Amino acid sequence: MTAFLTQQTVRFGHVDPAGIAYYPRIYDYIHEAFEELWERHVGVLYYHLIQERKIGFPLVHSEVDFANPLRFGDRPVVRVTCFQIGRASLGLRYLYSLDKASCIDARMITACINLERMQSIPIPSEYRGRFESILEPLPAKETRKR
Amino acid sequence: MTAFLTQQTVRFGHVDPAGIAYYPRIYDYIHEAFEELWERHVGVLYYHLIQERKIGFPLVHSEVDFANPLRFGDRPVVRVTCFQIGRASLGLRYLYSLDKASCIDARMITACINLERMQSIPIPSEYRGRFESILEPLPAKETRKR
Amino acid sequence: MTAFLTQQTVRFGHVDPAGIAYYPRIYDYIHEAFEELWERHVGVLYYHLIQERKIGFPLVHSEVDFANPLRFGDRPVVRVTCFQIGRASLGLRYLYSLDKASCIDARMITACINLERMQSIPIPSEYRGRFESILEPLPAKETRKR
Amino acid sequence: MTAFLTQQTVRFGHVDPAGIAYYPRIYDYIHEAFEELWERHVGVLYYHLIQERKIGFPLVHSEVDFANPLRFGDRPVVRVTCFQIGRASLGLRYLYSLDKASCIDARMITACINLERMQSIPIPSEYRGRFESILEPLPAKETRKR
Repeated sequence: MTAFLTQQTVRFGHVDPAGIAYYPRIYDYIHEAFEELWERHVGVLYYHLIQERKIGFPLVHSEVDFANPLRFGDRPVVRVTCFQIGRASLGLRYLYSLDKASCIDARMITACINLERMQSIPIPSEYRGRFESILEPLPAKETRKR
Repeated sequence: MTAFLTQQTVRFGHVDPAGIAYYPRIYDYIHEAFEELWERHVGVLYYHLIQERKIGFPLVHSEVDFANPLRFGDRPVVRVTCFQIGRASLGLRYLYSLDKASCIDARMITACINLERMQSIPIPSEYRGRFESILEPLPAKETRKR
Repeated sequence: MTAFLTQQTVRFGHVDPAGIAYYPRIYDYIHEAFEELWERHVGVLYYHLIQERKIGFPLVHSEVDFANPLRFGDRPVVRVTCFQIGRASLGLRYLYSLDKASCIDARMITACINLERMQSIPIPSEYRGRFESILEPLPAKETRKR
Repeated sequence: MTAFLTQQTVRFGHVDPAGIAYYPRIYDYIHEAFEELWERHVGVLYYHLIQERKIGFPLVHSEVDFANPLRFGDRPVVRVTCFQIGRASLGLRYLYSLDKASCIDARMITACINLERMQSIPIPSEYRGRFESILEPLPAKETRKR
């Protein structure tokens, strides 16, 4: 299995008075990693997907563990894998780490929909392979139980 | 059981090009409801808690279901209850609804910590009672399984 | 002359590590005051204006002075007046103060446009009167010079 | 004269329902360019400046012209120059453009302060030279008039 890797920076405006990334910002980081995955791994601008193909992937379920805080100036590595892929649903996992320490483990399940009809549609086959290429070998422990 | 109720507004800058609240904003709304809970239900400004008492409640685990989107101009009612309370951990549930339709069901588990030592501490007794007053009668189905 | 008054709260997530409102947030506050002005003073939801009438007021020029910082927990009063109104342009002034201390003085010039054609249009007469009712008696010193 | 150049991306969550970058986001972009200027041009992390040296550059005055909107997916080039430098004040100019079209012209005047005493201090000489290296040959027309 491979994974998509990217790196982000905890900026000045992301940090609360305690010096720690304000947690709603984490979800913003995750969306940014999602947009980068589309562009650099799938090969499609999320922009084009939405504007031209009228396809979107709204969030249906999220489950996130916060182990260690991110601080101002940190540059976490984000490791993105696919932990489940169905006909019309896509589960992506984002692991944030600093050096060897795991910081955030986020599992985000999105639905593939047609934005004009706001209806579920199958994930187009030209994209499916790209997500399968980062599929985890076995479901993660957390998700297997569900 | 009672619950803490508040209402929020989906503003212009919260909405993505599809006309739907950009989901990272939802976590910002949840934090805003959390701050209001402290001020109006517990009777303490979250500001004072952090700055003067050096106590904070960072997020440890979140689990959120998105059933129906929030759109520009929507004014969801937020119903906040406590779904679990331990010695040093606090699980709060935020149910967002529009009329009768449920939109978001968020369970957020925070830890009570001393911000100077960054260590877990017991939830101060003067606050505990306020959270117990909005305790759900039985664990929610989703959380019972865990 | 009268003015439109509102009040805002500097929340936890708005403050930078120095304990001061991260300045890009100030522009978010100003947009929020603008949306409230439409709803409570003009009597129209900015939502309806954009979605149904396809009219918007994008920013053309802004000039802002920062005299005193806003801090976590502050509840500044915002005093909104109109410092210039043209056929298709609207200059609104937002004065933020805490007790007697002035914090921010923002002059924001917007253009009235048709969002479908992206072209300048006259400010509809039914709204013009509402802005004239908060018109400053003489141009502010800052703007007279320009 | 040289200038510091960087490039930014208008992401999904930055765009309003009209498909245009929500203007308060522009100020967030400008702060991001400011942080990059420190890191890549001055050679100091803004993080270290604030946390270790207790020096900050809060905004005192901003003046921004919006000529053309930024849209979802746009990748504006940002050209940063210094339009005035005093003993304790620093005026930076950010020109956003797409191809040949100018989009935003922002002049931001900050004060150099000691964050512990919250008092104005001279710009340290080791940084001053870096800002002088991007000094505009003559004050920009907009600023000369003031």
